[in-house]
Amino acid sequence: MRKFSSLLFLLFLSWTASAQQLNSPNGALQLNFELKDGVPFYDLKYKGIPVILPSKLGLKLKNHPDFTEGFVTSTAEQSDFDETWEPVWGEEKAIRNHYKEMAVTLHQDAAHEHRTLMIRFRLFDDGLGFRYEFPSQQGLAHFIVSDEKTQFAMTGDHTAFWIPGDYDTQEYDYVESKLSEIRGLMDAAITGNISQTSFSPTGVQTSLMLKTADGLYINLHEAALINYATMHLNLDDEKMIFESWLTPNPNGDKVYLQTPSVSPWRTIIVSDDAREILASRITYNLNEPNKIEDTSWIRPMKYIGVWWEMITGKSTWAYTDDFPAVELGVTDFSKASPNGKHGATTENVKRHIDFAAAHGFDGVLVEGWNEGWEDWFGNAKDYVFDFVTPYPDFDLAGVRDYARSKGVELIMHHETSSSVRNYERHMDQAYQFMKDNGYNAVKSGYVGTILPLGDNHYSQWQVNHYQYALEKAADYQIMINAHEAVRPTGIARTYPNLIANESARGTEYQAFGGSKPNHVTVLPFTRLIGGPMDYTPGIFEMDISKLNPDNNSWVNSTIANQLALYVTMYSPLQMAADLPEHYEKFMDAFQFIKDVALDWDESRYLEAEPGYYLTIARKAKGTNDWYLGNVNGNEGRASQLTFDFLDSNKTYVATLYEDQKDAHYRNNPQAYEIKKGTVTHKTKLSQYSAPGGGFAISIREANAEEIKGLKKLK
Amino acid sequence: MRKFSSLLFLLFLSWTASAQQLNSPNGALQLNFELKDGVPFYDLKYKGIPVILPSKLGLKLKNHPDFTEGFVTSTAEQSDFDETWEPVWGEEKAIRNHYKEMAVTLHQDAAHEHRTLMIRFRLFDDGLGFRYEFPSQQGLAHFIVSDEKTQFAMTGDHTAFWIPGDYDTQEYDYVESKLSEIRGLMDAAITGNISQTSFSPTGVQTSLMLKTADGLYINLHEAALINYATMHLNLDDEKMIFESWLTPNPNGDKVYLQTPSVSPWRTIIVSDDAREILASRITYNLNEPNKIEDTSWIRPMKYIGVWWEMITGKSTWAYTDDFPAVELGVTDFSKASPNGKHGATTENVKRHIDFAAAHGFDGVLVEGWNEGWEDWFGNAKDYVFDFVTPYPDFDLAGVRDYARSKGVELIMHHETSSSVRNYERHMDQAYQFMKDNGYNAVKSGYVGTILPLGDNHYSQWQVNHYQYALEKAADYQIMINAHEAVRPTGIARTYPNLIANESARGTEYQAFGGSKPNHVTVLPFTRLIGGPMDYTPGIFEMDISKLNPDNNSWVNSTIANQLALYVTMYSPLQMAADLPEHYEKFMDAFQFIKDVALDWDESRYLEAEPGYYLTIARKAKGTNDWYLGNVNGNEGRASQLTFDFLDSNKTYVATLYEDQKDAHYRNNPQAYEIKKGTVTHKTKLSQYSAPGGGFAISIREANAEEIKGLKKLK
Repeated sequence: MRKFSSLLFLLFLSWTASAQQLNSPNGALQLNFELKDGVPFYDLKYKGIPVILPSKLGLKLKNHPDFTEGFVTSTAEQSDFDETWEPVWGEEKAIRNHYKEMAVTLHQDAAHEHRTLMIRFRLFDDGLGFRYEFPSQQGLAHFIVSDEKTQFAMTGDHTAFWIPGDYDTQEYDYVESKLSEIRGLMDAAITGNISQTSFSPTGVQTSLMLKTADGLYINLHEAALINYATMHLNLDDEKMIFESWLTPNPNGDKVYLQTPSVSPWRTIIVSDDAREILASRITYNLNEPNKIEDTSWIRPMKYIGVWWEMITGKSTWAYTDDFPAVELGVTDFSKASPNGKHGATTENVKRHIDFAAAHGFDGVLVEGWNEGWEDWFGNAKDYVFDFVTPYPDFDLAGVRDYARSKGVELIMHHETSSSVRNYERHMDQAYQFMKDNGYNAVKSGYVGTILPLGDNHYSQWQVNHYQYALEKAADYQIMINAHEAVRPTGIARTYPNLIANESARGTEYQAFGGSKPNHVTVLPFTRLIGGPMDYTPGIFEMDISKLNPDNNSWVNSTIANQLALYVTMYSPLQMAADLPEHYEKFMDAFQFIKDVALDWDESRYLEAEPGYYLTIARKAKGTNDWYLGNVNGNEGRASQLTFDFLDSNKTYVATLYEDQKDAHYRNNPQAYEIKKGTVTHKTKLSQYSAPGGGFAISIREANAEEIKGLKKLK
Repeated sequence: MRKFSSLLFLLFLSWTASAQQLNSPNGALQLNFELKDGVPFYDLKYKGIPVILPSKLGLKLKNHPDFTEGFVTSTAEQSDFDETWEPVWGEEKAIRNHYKEMAVTLHQDAAHEHRTLMIRFRLFDDGLGFRYEFPSQQGLAHFIVSDEKTQFAMTGDHTAFWIPGDYDTQEYDYVESKLSEIRGLMDAAITGNISQTSFSPTGVQTSLMLKTADGLYINLHEAALINYATMHLNLDDEKMIFESWLTPNPNGDKVYLQTPSVSPWRTIIVSDDAREILASRITYNLNEPNKIEDTSWIRPMKYIGVWWEMITGKSTWAYTDDFPAVELGVTDFSKASPNGKHGATTENVKRHIDFAAAHGFDGVLVEGWNEGWEDWFGNAKDYVFDFVTPYPDFDLAGVRDYARSKGVELIMHHETSSSVRNYERHMDQAYQFMKDNGYNAVKSGYVGTILPLGDNHYSQWQVNHYQYALEKAADYQIMINAHEAVRPTGIARTYPNLIANESARGTEYQAFGGSKPNHVTVLPFTRLIGGPMDYTPGIFEMDISKLNPDNNSWVNSTIANQLALYVTMYSPLQMAADLPEHYEKFMDAFQFIKDVALDWDESRYLEAEPGYYLTIARKAKGTNDWYLGNVNGNEGRASQLTFDFLDSNKTYVATLYEDQKDAHYRNNPQAYEIKKGTVTHKTKLSQYSAPGGGFAISIREANAEEIKGLKKLK
C-alpha cells in the first residue's frame, strides 16, 4: 500500500508537467500535447497558425476499460532523427527522413486498472505522424479495439476533396465542397459499384485533401496499415471535428490486438504551398525500412495489355456463353463453343507481344486467359478460379515461349473475385506456376463482395490478407499490383515488390460512363499519398462507342492530357492502356509513351492546385533527361514555366506534346500538336492546356549536331 | 403460345399420376410421395405403421421463387440397386447397399419461373434417404438457400435422446425426454462450452434417436454433408413436426449453390428392434464410393498419448508462464523459464513411447509439443500456431528417432484454435512436416470460436474447410482425426482417411465435471450413426483429484465399462487414454485393451436399448477371435447372452472382465473381476453389469492344450 502511494505521488509530479511541446526540425510545425481532466489532447500549428485545434486521442476497448480517459500521469521523451535512405524505385533517388520525436507514456487510474498507453509523435517539417503503442503490461495481453477515437479538429469550414467513406471501395469521383456541404452531397456522391458499403452521411475516406480559407493545404491519411483496420474519417459537421472511423470485422469488432503492438500512424501533412504536399515523403518515412534483402528482381515496368478491349466491352474475358455456371475441374471447356469475342486468344496475345517488342515495352498483361470467367462474380462462388488452367484458345506454353523469344515479359492476372480463401488456398501453386512460366509480376484483383459475405475489403481481416499475399510474393520474388485491395499507406518502402495498387477510380471508369475531367488533378493529392497507382493511362480513342457500339462512354481527357499522366501519376508500373491499332493512328504522340522513363533521380513540383492543375518535372534515373507533365482541370489555363531545374551549362532538345488551342476533352480531344526545340535553364514558357487537357515535354541533353536547325522552344 | 399449352396438357396428365408409392426391397418400408395443391409431401410407413406422417418438402431461395410450392407436374422414375462393397476399415468386411430408388422430377408453374427440382428417394429395408437435386436449367445458375423446409412429421409425442441444437458444438450430455418436454428442459441442457450458439428452444441436433410408444425406433440424420450447411431439427411442439434448420453462413444465408448440384441426404432409419438401428449402414451407403485409390497407408491404430494429464490439469500444454501473449517467430522461448508442469517434454514422451512399445500400441499422441499454447484460445488470435515449431524441451528429431527405433508411430496434433485461415495457410507445410518426420495421422482440433468471429463451426463455409483439410490430407497420405469439427455423415466411405472424429461429448468431459453414466449407451445410436468417434476410453482412475487436487471431477464409469467401450464404441482409432502409471496398477484388466482388435469382419448386436444397455460381439479381422462388450446405464442389469455366433464345431477360450457385484460408477468403480473359461456356440450366460458398468469378453479359438483345466464360462 505504501509503495502504491509513493507511486501516485511521483506520477503526480510528472502530470503537472504533462503539457508538452514539440517543434519540427526547422520550427515550422509545432505540436502540443496535454492531459486535460484525464483525457489526452493534441493540437498542431504551422508557422504559428492553428492547423488542428485541440483534439482528443484515445481508443475504446471491448471488455476492458477504455483508453480514452482516466489518465493521471504522463511522461514524455523527446529525440531527434535524421537519415537519408534510397528507395528501390521512386520519385527521387534518396529520401530524407528527418523528424523530432516525442514518445508520451500515459498511465491510467485505478478505475482504469492502471493501464499504460503510449502515443508516439513524429514531427517533420512537412507534417505530423503519430500512433498508439500498447506496451506489454499486467492484465492487458489480448484486447479488442471497439472504436478508435482519434480526433482531427478543423479550424473552419474548409474546402475538401473527398470521396464517400466506404468499407469496400474507393472507386468514386472526388467531390470538391465545403465540409459543411458533405452531408448534402453524400447521396449523389455514392455512385454504383459492384461492392460498396457506406457507413455515415459525413463519412469520408483518407487520404483526404483539405484547403483552408487562408490557403493552408492539409492532408489526412495513415501510414503503415499493418494488422489493423482501415481508417476512415467521420465528420461532426457542427463542430467541424473529424474522428477516426475504423472498418469493422464481420462481427462488428474493429481490431484484435495483443501487447506489445502499435497502431498505424495517423498523418497530417501541411503546407501553405500545395506543391509541398506532393513532395512530402512522411508516409514512406513512417514505414519500416525495406525488408527484402535482394531487390534485383524488382524492376519498374512499362506494359501494354489485353484489357481495354474487355473493359470497353469490345471483347470478353469469358471464352464461351455455353455455361451459366462453371465448375472448375468438371466443366469441359474443350467441348464448349467459343463465343467469338474472347480477348485472350493466342493470336491476339501474340499480336500484343509483337507490338510490345516493336515499341520497347517490358511486358504484356493478359486478362481472361484462365477458366472461370463465365460466372466469375456476383454469385458468392467459392471456387471461382484456380489461377493455373488456361482456356483452350490460350496456348500458355506457346505464348510464353513466343514472349520470351521477343524479349517481352508476360504479366500474370489473378482475379480473385474476392473469394479470398480460395485465393489463399491456391496461392503457393499460383505463384510457383508464375515462376515456372517466367512471369515476375502479377495484377491481382478483388472485384465483388468479400466471401464469406459479411466481411469487407478494408477490415483488419482482409488487410492481413493483402499483406500475406505481398509477403508471400516476396518469397517467390514476385511483384504485386493489387486492384480493389486496400489503398496503400507507404508499405512499399518495407515491401518494394508492391509496385502499384489501384484502390481508386482508375481509367477503367472512363469506359464505365466517364470520370470528371479534373480527376487526375486530385489523385496525386489523395490516393497517391500512400503509394503508386496503376492508373492505366494512355487512351487515345475517347469515343468508346467506336470500340463497342453498345457503350456510349466518353473518355473525358485529351491525348496531351493522357501523355502527361505518365509524369504526373507517378508509378514504377505504367500501362499504355489503349489498343495497338489506336496507337498506330497517332505514332508521333505515342512516341512520348515510348520515351518516358519509369524511375527517377529527382522530381520537381512546378505548379500544383488540387482539382485544378498540376505540373511536374522529373529527371530520369541515371540520365540527364527530364520529362515534364501537366494535367489540367475543367477550364483552359496557361502554365508559366521556368526550366531552372536544368543544368545551367547545357542545352537540351525538348519535344512538346500540347493541346491545340481548340482542343477540349469533350468535343475535340485528339487535337494535339508536337513541337521540337531547344531549352536551357533560362528558358521560360507560357504553355496552354485545354479543358481536361495538358501537355508533356521530353527533354534530353543534346549535342551540337542535334540542335542544328532547332529553334528555341516557346 | 401453342407449344406452351400442349406442354401444360402433357404435364397435367403426369400430375394426375403424381402420387407415387415405393416399397423397400423386402417390403417392410413404404414411401408415399404426393403433390398436394402444388406442394410436395412424403410419408413413410414401417410394416404398415406410420413412421412419418405426410410431411412437406422444399427449400426457400433468396432472390428467386421458392422451391416450396407452385409445382404443377411431377414425373417419377423408379429403379433398383444392389451391390456389396468392402470398406477399408469397419464393423464388417462387406456392406450390402440394397435399395429401391424413386427420382421425382418436379416442375413449377409460370409464377415460379417454370423451375425444375428433383427429389431422389432411396428406400432401404432399414430406412429412407432422400435428397434435393438442382438440375442445370434456364435462369437458375447460382442461387442461395435461405431455408430448407424439409419436414419430419412425428406420429406422436415420442421419447427422444437429444442434445441442444447448436451451430458450434455437440459436446452436450443427452437428455431423454418426451418431445413435448424439450422446450422445458432446453435451458438446463445447454451446459457451458468455450464456443456455443444455440438457436431455438425446441432445436435439437442430428443424429436424433427417437422411440415411439409402440416400440418403434427412429433415427433422423443426414448423409454426405458436402458443400452444404449442417442440418439441425427444429420442433413444432404443438404439431410434433420437426423441420430442417440449417446453420447459417456469417451473413445469415444458409447455402450457396450452383446448378447442377445436390443437397446432402436426409435419413430416417427405422425398426422395431433397436439393434437394427446400430446395424444400419444407410449413412455410408448414401455416400459416394471410396475415392482414394491406394489405401495401403490407411491403417487402424491403437494409441496412448500425452493428453489425459493435461485434460485433468495435472500438467499443461503450455511450456511457460512468462508470456501473457505469444507472438510466434518473435517470442523467444529459449529464454523463457519453464513452468515445470509442461506435459510434452522429451523425457515424458520417451516414457510413453517405451510404454507403447512394451504393450504393443501402434502410436503415441503428443499434445502441447509446439509453440503457442500460452495464449491459445479465447483471444481471437489469428496467428496462434505454426504447427511446426517445437518447444525447447521437446527434442523433435530425438523423439522421432526414438519412436522409430521402438517401432512406434507418433501421432501429430494440429490444434487450430478455430483460427481456420491460419491453419489453411500453414496446412501444406504442416502436412509435409508430418511426412518428413514419419507422422501418418493427425488429430486436428477446432477449440473456441471460429475466426473471424461471426462464423460458426457448422456453416457451409466451415464444412468446406473440414472437407478441404481431409482431401488435402489424402493427397499427403495422412489420416485425420478431427475434433470439434462437424459431426460425420458417412463421408469416411468416400475418404477413408477420416479415421475418426470427436464431435460429441467425449471422455474429456469426465475430467470436466463428469458425464452421465448412461452417455455411452446413447452415443452409438446418435453420434456414431455418421462414423467413428475418437471417444478416448480406457480410464482406470476415476477420482480425478488424485491426478490434480484442484479438480474434483469423477469419471462416471467402472473399469469394466471402460473396457467394454473398445467394442461398443466402434472406431478404427482407439486410445488408451489413462496414464501409464494407472495401467500399471491394473495390468490384468489392461490386458483386454492390449488384446482387443481394431478392425472387424463381422459385428453382432446382441442387445440394445438406447440410454439403457448395449451388447455387441465383433469378430476380429482375418481371425476367429471375437470380442464382446456390454455397457450399461444408470441401473444394474443382467444380460442374457447366447454365443450362437461362434462356429458350431469349435471350443473357444473366453476371458471375462466383469463388474463385481458391489461395483458402482460412483463409489466403487475399480471393483472388477476377471474370469477365464471355455465357451461354445451353445453357451448361455446371464451376466451382471453394475450401474454405469459393463463387461468385456475376449474369445479366441483354443486348442486342447489350452483348454485343459478350464471350466465352462458361466
